[in-house]
Amino acid sequence: MKEQLWENILSVRHNSPLVHNITNYVVMNNTANALLAVGASPVMAHAHSEVRNMVAIAGALVVNIGTLDEYWVESMISAVDEAKTLHKPWILDPVGAGATTYRNEVLAKFISLKPAVIRGNASEIMALANHSLIQTKGVDSTHQSTEALAAAEILTQQLGSVICISGATDIIIDQQRKVFLHNGNPMMGKVTGLGCTASALIGAFTTIERTDYFDGTVAAMALLSVAGEIAAQYSAGPGSLQLNILDKLYNITAEEFFNLLKFEIKS
Amino acid sequence: MKEQLWENILSVRHNSPLVHNITNYVVMNNTANALLAVGASPVMAHAHSEVRNMVAIAGALVVNIGTLDEYWVESMISAVDEAKTLHKPWILDPVGAGATTYRNEVLAKFISLKPAVIRGNASEIMALANHSLIQTKGVDSTHQSTEALAAAEILTQQLGSVICISGATDIIIDQQRKVFLHNGNPMMGKVTGLGCTASALIGAFTTIERTDYFDGTVAAMALLSVAGEIAAQYSAGPGSLQLNILDKLYNITAEEFFNLLKFEIKS
Amino acid sequence: MKEQLWENILSVRHNSPLVHNITNYVVMNNTANALLAVGASPVMAHAHSEVRNMVAIAGALVVNIGTLDEYWVESMISAVDEAKTLHKPWILDPVGAGATTYRNEVLAKFISLKPAVIRGNASEIMALANHSLIQTKGVDSTHQSTEALAAAEILTQQLGSVICISGATDIIIDQQRKVFLHNGNPMMGKVTGLGCTASALIGAFTTIERTDYFDGTVAAMALLSVAGEIAAQYSAGPGSLQLNILDKLYNITAEEFFNLLKFEIKS
Repeated sequence: MKEQLWENILSVRHNSPLVHNITNYVVMNNTANALLAVGASPVMAHAHSEVRNMVAIAGALVVNIGTLDEYWVESMISAVDEAKTLHKPWILDPVGAGATTYRNEVLAKFISLKPAVIRGNASEIMALANHSLIQTKGVDSTHQSTEALAAAEILTQQLGSVICISGATDIIIDQQRKVFLHNGNPMMGKVTGLGCTASALIGAFTTIERTDYFDGTVAAMALLSVAGEIAAQYSAGPGSLQLNILDKLYNITAEEFFNLLKFEIKS
Repeated sequence: MKEQLWENILSVRHNSPLVHNITNYVVMNNTANALLAVGASPVMAHAHSEVRNMVAIAGALVVNIGTLDEYWVESMISAVDEAKTLHKPWILDPVGAGATTYRNEVLAKFISLKPAVIRGNASEIMALANHSLIQTKGVDSTHQSTEALAAAEILTQQLGSVICISGATDIIIDQQRKVFLHNGNPMMGKVTGLGCTASALIGAFTTIERTDYFDGTVAAMALLSVAGEIAAQYSAGPGSLQLNILDKLYNITAEEFFNLLKFEIKS
Repeated sequence: MKEQLWENILSVRHNSPLVHNITNYVVMNNTANALLAVGASPVMAHAHSEVRNMVAIAGALVVNIGTLDEYWVESMISAVDEAKTLHKPWILDPVGAGATTYRNEVLAKFISLKPAVIRGNASEIMALANHSLIQTKGVDSTHQSTEALAAAEILTQQLGSVICISGATDIIIDQQRKVFLHNGNPMMGKVTGLGCTASALIGAFTTIERTDYFDGTVAAMALLSVAGEIAAQYSAGPGSLQLNILDKLYNITAEEFFNLLKFEIKS
């Protein structure tokens, strides 16, 4: 499967898919730059007057609720509706799931619209499982990754979505498959919005023909975590890491990618 | 004319003009930093309750529709109206012209308000000519730069605006003059919002006394494309290029500028 | 007091306080990154439907009016009201005070809600004193720092707030105390939003137990100005300075901090 991941990276570079992002204010610049760096084309558009038209010309839609408000949620719902009508993949980034009642209510709506892929950190994925469609037992924070995996399994069974839990180990699952990625660097947690970047890149990789959303998600996460791991080696802190990741997403070679990739298929 | 370009660059550094930007969320940080780097002062303000007052204290207004919505378009229209009343220059950046009906309708309105300068890429300039005031023949994408120039000529004749087409070669025209700039680097296309930066810098350069909007636009574009060309030489990728351009806008010398500038006056 | 400042820096690193920012679009990314770099956790949220709930889980609230509009002002007022109800500190960054009538009216409202800390540049602090609650004599721009200090003294007497005037010398005062900080570098004025960063860091430092808002504000300002002074030494321009400051906020050592700190308690 490793060769296939690299082919998917080359495919995005070659095809330059247009990815429509309705995302938060904090990360828009870095998200756009990350999409450009991997060879994709970003567009950000949220006006009620055009959001459906923009979905129509994009290859994928990424919805990120980081700085949501009532107007933006309506934009997101229209965009998702259009994406579903046109059979285009849409990705959900449930930023801050569990933090407020409003976020949970909005996410319950989005969950019911069955994203192609959901990517969040462990606590967001657990909150989605707890507060949205599904009743689970309470979260035991001492066993967070086990609990998050259990939450992801419930979500994928119920929704059919690919679920990606990002963290020290990235976990990608669907109803049949499970992949663990052991790349990255702890300093990546000190750069705002790398999770949002991951979701945007997943958007780009769901547009690849001849692969499915699961393999696309694995390729996007592998690319970002390997690029981040390399970039962290020569970054004095999170400021330089933010831009060194962009450089590495742009200029990473197959040799660099395969040298570092730590990839595990679980049964 | 080369000496005049550098004098204009020094004039902006010396006078620190206040540039009012109503622009998109993706680029606001980088736009503000670019204006500061060349010596100008940025202000971003869009509230209906203050937008006219902010125009009144600024030297120029830059309107960029990248992430437009209904509220922001109303802000933009009020601001442009005030700029025209006060005889201040306003610059239009028609991001995504042609992408949606809504953008085209908004741009038709803005075009009718006759910007001092319009800056876009080739496809945006062609879309403006096609969808706004003017009927042209269909665009032949195999001859994009010729077609874009034809579109720019129609726009400048009809509106009296300076038209700037940015790309591998930047073209600046008005009803009498035509300048081609052959600077820059392809990696600049991988940094989000450098076109938006160009428009903001043009805003700063339209405030210079003793020059006109055409020469100001040429100076702004020459500065950005030469700075970008230099910065690209030591940038490993688009992440470092974004900040190296800011550094070079700030510390470029006359010698560096004149050494690289490739400038052509067409008849 | 110097030892206490460093202990406060370590305390933020250790406790990772959640800081709720309702701030402007231009600086959100850099603000979030600066909070992460010092060890705090940023959240940006402004929806009327959740803003009170987000205040409830945060340690401090930072209100920055840089790109205010009617919706956001309503968010800010609700958030401040909730912070006051819950006895949580809130910090006011009066960006552009004095520039428009609307800003002045909004600021008059905020001033009446008595922030824990107000941070602005000299002209903003003077405008607050002039246009809000208080009548002072006109501003003499040839004696700006003296006038700003006089304005700050009026504000702190009237409101009980800690007042921080940032500039070449940072001045922090309350009703009993006065500290001058002589760190920083002029190039910091060419990076957009470092003042906004300062306000956000103050937010993080007001959450420290066993210190008060005055000492917290001094520690935040000392950290940022020393980090900026160090970072400027190896920054070719404001682009690299923006990220080098983030790196230095993250990796600054006690030795570096004490070596450069120029700190003066005034009576």
